[in-house]
Amino acid sequence: MTIPESPQDWQTLASQKRAALTALIPPSWTLSPTLLDSLNPKGSALSIPASSGIFTARELLITTSYDATALLTGLQSRYLSAEEVVTAFCKRAAVAHQCVNCLTEIMFEEAIARAREVDKKREAGEEVGRLAGLPVSLKDSFNITGTKTTIGYVSYASNPPASADSALITLLRREGAIFYCKTNLPQTMMTADSHNNLFGRTLNPNNLSLTAGGSTGGEGALLRMCGSVLGIATDIAGSIRIPALCNGVAGFKPTAGRIPFAGKVPPARLGSPSPIAPVIGPLGRSIRDFELFMKTVIDAEPWDVDPNVLAVPWRKVEPVTRPLRFGLIRGHPKRPLHPPVARTLHTAAMSLKKAGHEMVLLDDRIPDLWECAVLAWKFFLLDPQKTPAKFVQASGEPWVPSITTAKFPELKGWEASLDELFDMNVERAKIVARYHDIVIENRLDAIIMPGNQSTAPPHDTYGVAPYTVLANLLNYPAGILPFLTANRRLDQPFMNQVVEYVPPYNPELFEGMPGAVQILGKPMKDEETIEILKVVESVLKKATEEPVKD
Amino acid sequence: MTIPESPQDWQTLASQKRAALTALIPPSWTLSPTLLDSLNPKGSALSIPASSGIFTARELLITTSYDATALLTGLQSRYLSAEEVVTAFCKRAAVAHQCVNCLTEIMFEEAIARAREVDKKREAGEEVGRLAGLPVSLKDSFNITGTKTTIGYVSYASNPPASADSALITLLRREGAIFYCKTNLPQTMMTADSHNNLFGRTLNPNNLSLTAGGSTGGEGALLRMCGSVLGIATDIAGSIRIPALCNGVAGFKPTAGRIPFAGKVPPARLGSPSPIAPVIGPLGRSIRDFELFMKTVIDAEPWDVDPNVLAVPWRKVEPVTRPLRFGLIRGHPKRPLHPPVARTLHTAAMSLKKAGHEMVLLDDRIPDLWECAVLAWKFFLLDPQKTPAKFVQASGEPWVPSITTAKFPELKGWEASLDELFDMNVERAKIVARYHDIVIENRLDAIIMPGNQSTAPPHDTYGVAPYTVLANLLNYPAGILPFLTANRRLDQPFMNQVVEYVPPYNPELFEGMPGAVQILGKPMKDEETIEILKVVESVLKKATEEPVKD
Repeated sequence: MTIPESPQDWQTLASQKRAALTALIPPSWTLSPTLLDSLNPKGSALSIPASSGIFTARELLITTSYDATALLTGLQSRYLSAEEVVTAFCKRAAVAHQCVNCLTEIMFEEAIARAREVDKKREAGEEVGRLAGLPVSLKDSFNITGTKTTIGYVSYASNPPASADSALITLLRREGAIFYCKTNLPQTMMTADSHNNLFGRTLNPNNLSLTAGGSTGGEGALLRMCGSVLGIATDIAGSIRIPALCNGVAGFKPTAGRIPFAGKVPPARLGSPSPIAPVIGPLGRSIRDFELFMKTVIDAEPWDVDPNVLAVPWRKVEPVTRPLRFGLIRGHPKRPLHPPVARTLHTAAMSLKKAGHEMVLLDDRIPDLWECAVLAWKFFLLDPQKTPAKFVQASGEPWVPSITTAKFPELKGWEASLDELFDMNVERAKIVARYHDIVIENRLDAIIMPGNQSTAPPHDTYGVAPYTVLANLLNYPAGILPFLTANRRLDQPFMNQVVEYVPPYNPELFEGMPGAVQILGKPMKDEETIEILKVVESVLKKATEEPVKD
Repeated sequence: MTIPESPQDWQTLASQKRAALTALIPPSWTLSPTLLDSLNPKGSALSIPASSGIFTARELLITTSYDATALLTGLQSRYLSAEEVVTAFCKRAAVAHQCVNCLTEIMFEEAIARAREVDKKREAGEEVGRLAGLPVSLKDSFNITGTKTTIGYVSYASNPPASADSALITLLRREGAIFYCKTNLPQTMMTADSHNNLFGRTLNPNNLSLTAGGSTGGEGALLRMCGSVLGIATDIAGSIRIPALCNGVAGFKPTAGRIPFAGKVPPARLGSPSPIAPVIGPLGRSIRDFELFMKTVIDAEPWDVDPNVLAVPWRKVEPVTRPLRFGLIRGHPKRPLHPPVARTLHTAAMSLKKAGHEMVLLDDRIPDLWECAVLAWKFFLLDPQKTPAKFVQASGEPWVPSITTAKFPELKGWEASLDELFDMNVERAKIVARYHDIVIENRLDAIIMPGNQSTAPPHDTYGVAPYTVLANLLNYPAGILPFLTANRRLDQPFMNQVVEYVPPYNPELFEGMPGAVQILGKPMKDEETIEILKVVESVLKKATEEPVKD
């Protein structure tokens, strides 16, 4: 890439970066202008890969019909070659990018070369690692040696490529994972629209006029386009789970301190005294893949590569065979659930009850959800230097529109102080203690709640994230499972005429959009949470196939 | 206790509190004035119990010849009764208190009644718990239902008795532990002299003119007088380890978050954003007792009673049979090791080498120890409201003298700010990362270093604690093992004529005072650290019996 004549010209920098990215897509993987033109800006892009003529039937099968665990079985048995698997996903990621603008860095060539090496090693009977040949996609904030990490700041575009891998990448690479692309995120990473001035906006594959969510939105959209089978995301307020629920894929945010965070590029100032730590977790197709991810990383003793990882082995826990007790949270009056979300949650709870599990209604017992979210947001606003603004201003780029919508009106003009930080910590401790008591007193195994009040809303209208940030404030592990889709006829009975839906509820617009439920487990009990998620996954799968009558 | 006529009269409040405490010692356990007068204010109190005529031979044996594990074996086999064990320790605690002023609350009657219950239950074949009949002493800051928790603030003297047990007490009680006294600590808990205006000053049983250390100094002195076999302490800068090394007993500070801290009375403002958390740990006679304590507490699933405990089971690890690799830290020029401390450390290192273990000298590779301590102290001074001063001023009591000595001159006039807190966290992260790298690169199992530059110094001269606070800053588990005693003849070769010893080195004064070494393990590897401490304990025991020639 050439250095632009004027470093002030952020538009030039950005267009050069985008052009360089597109140039890494082989011409034979380029969609025809006719096909691209056929994309309805208010419609879906999901059918494009199959109709593009670019994929073989086997490539379509490889990219759509397996989870990571099954792909690895195919690779281990040599029914599949790493080269064909990685090539198929590179191709599909390229096509996804042309439809929804989800990529930030492309490493297709290196990835396919690595895949060939894995195939050779396997053929020679050499040790290849637990994830050998598995294509893994990454949020842009991870460092990959030799690749840039701009995290969407135009001012970062002229930074040199990373000289070392992030700690997690080192571990996954050692196990044979193959990195082939990095994905888009929001300016500052603190909005739920994966939109920045360097790469532009990622669109939702289900409906291009709706948000792909954020901050790991590029990953969410790529997964939904089947351009990836396992994506690595991060979450401090919902950034794993929001793209999962917006796009209709699964996501898992572990307890903080279990997956190594070292060596990532931060969007804000280091050293925050906030008790809410960012967490890395997977986006994908199945809970067993999340277990594979967690177990593989933790078995690799990540505390040896990152001093902030808790030296706590992954425990083997038995699959759940007893009835589970779920606490049920149905929402907050400031953000009433849109009818499709209410129906999804209701149907999930009914299906779990039908399967023998118990529900304990928590709405009236929990600390005010909205106030919890306001408190969490205060922790995100501690930096007196407002460092993210400096990163933005350095290039002259403007703020993206969603920045102004992802704010609490309560915090307008609020400035943090060390004195108030003590009180905030006390307030948080009370909330944590209250949830702890509720869980213990009611012998709860998990909490089921919405991940958001709506499915993916129109661009720049997602706003704040009270339903996801709760698990960050509490440091509880949390998963999103996709379930059902918006259906105006079925959703109609869940319509409440007297509430104000924020963002507005528009049945036509949301028709067919994915639904989801959120499950919170107990802190440090990621192992048990994964088993509980497997139970819910199985119950919801059955409920999708044989709808419950209520 | 009656309410004093003027609540401003702190002296009256304090003398009433002390009189009420003394009144709980049965007359038959009171030392004769002749014996008390015979105590040399610059001499030892260690021989008093045996010469007091108050104890039977069996009581002397019970209080001196067992560790907690052995006592429990005796209790389980019914060779010992809980009643006689608890009575013996109550008696000895009473005598210790009369010599060194170590107690703050006395629960002898309730304790002996509980012991009788344990005996009855055991006789009836009922379940009695893992610690049934074991007397356990406590730092004053723990809450025991029905007993006051004043933590040495005169202003707390009129607080009502605790209405609930601290979380840890609940768990230990469930296992049959018997609480019989609470022990003295410093005003604010932030000095190394266990001296406050409510209870006065605890003296060092080895030499009454020297400090008993702090902040768990009452516990340290009680242990050394054999008035307890297992004491529960807390540590944020060395408060478990300083009394251990001052008095000559063993102590263990675990990793933060493993032992439940909930329901204690804090000496300062809640909600501090400091990354250095206070930690509970045991003082005692053997490492196997510390293992018993850790395993018993963690097996009781303390995360169910305290949301701040990490839900991480106690792991069974194998005893160490291979040669260990120790990093050796020999001190900092600002606080050169007194000759007895230098000789103790040198002899310990040589003994470990002789036993086949390896030493890697770290002095020139580590971040500046003094600067690390200054940083840690900044974290202790974050509260803009200076809450401990309010607790002191509330009663009109003055500051105790050691408060002024336990300060870094570098921090005179320093005021914390939220902005600087970010930078402090970054600085701490660098230090943590550097130690992590040193440990990994050198394949270290543990670090061996002094716990302080001197043995117990004269009252009010302990000053700051750079050698203990390091483990708090890093959140590494750390143990103190007593080893050797000051011996001017043997120490002489370790004398350095060109350094300035702080506090001054006075060979006559320190003669016979206990030595100690400090061992740091890896964070969250408390299980492995205990096994390493067992190895060191065994090597040092052998070295005491058969001195190494160097």
